Amino acid sequence: MQFLDDYQPGQRFVTAARLMSEDAAKDFATAFDPQPFHLDADAAADSTFGKLVVSGWHTAALTMRLMVDSDFQPVNGIVGFRVDELNWNRPVSPGDRLHAVMEVLAVTPSRSKPDRGVLKLRISTINQEDEAVQDMTANLLVMRRPDAG
Amino acid sequence: MQFLDDYQPGQRFVTAARLMSEDAAKDFATAFDPQPFHLDADAAADSTFGKLVVSGWHTAALTMRLMVDSDFQPVNGIVGFRVDELNWNRPVSPGDRLHAVMEVLAVTPSRSKPDRGVLKLRISTINQEDEAVQDMTANLLVMRRPDAG
Repeated sequence: MQFLDDYQPGQRFVTAARLMSEDAAKDFATAFDPQPFHLDADAAADSTFGKLVVSGWHTAALTMRLMVDSDFQPVNGIVGFRVDELNWNRPVSPGDRLHAVMEVLAVTPSRSKPDRGVLKLRISTINQEDEAVQDMTANLLVMRRPDAG
Repeated sequence: MQFLDDYQPGQRFVTAARLMSEDAAKDFATAFDPQPFHLDADAAADSTFGKLVVSGWHTAALTMRLMVDSDFQPVNGIVGFRVDELNWNRPVSPGDRLHAVMEVLAVTPSRSKPDRGVLKLRISTINQEDEAVQDMTANLLVMRRPDAG
């Protein structure tokens, strides 16, 4: 468990890797993003992508799961309130193995609420070829150590 | 079906509404965001939120589904490559009914690839009390009308 005061700029966390399985990709797409290039290999071949690709929102959701299961453990949980930028740099294909790397960019105690503050993180999601498939900058609400301030 | 040339700044699309059911919220959280404030009402009461809330990534994914099912139909599908900003303004509770409103902010033909361009959209996700629970600015790749340019 980490309080805001336990983080410092430059600190990094690396998650475990998870398989983005074809079944999971199709289940997610069926529920949330039922477009042909996420569901049907033949239709995908004729699409902008030229092949079956995973919904970007699935990559974002899986990244959240990787973070929840990692050593990054803010005391009040992982509570994001704003993403400054979210890039899908490369398509993710079913069968890819993804992990995430988080780097602390800034630690900003709140002026108005001394028990909390904002942790700004760069979160890169990386495939088995060591290519970043997604990058984002996220702002999390993190509580301060009770005796800090 | 719409080509890039069919959009203009200020144009709006309104989606249908969908229920964010408690079962769906727990299934999503179990898969992607298994934190106590998404899964257990008692634990949620003691959390930063004070009540059971839906994962922000579930709200984002459901917003995608609302868009796919709407009258907003780019010819090559809804292909986002970057979100400039994503705000979770208010918690979503299981049982909320959500719809989305999209507004075209900018239409920018590509200089290097004359068959395509970028559509910048403001996408607001709105609950049954008419409160925006999520706002984002997204950039989509959209193909141009074959005879345009």
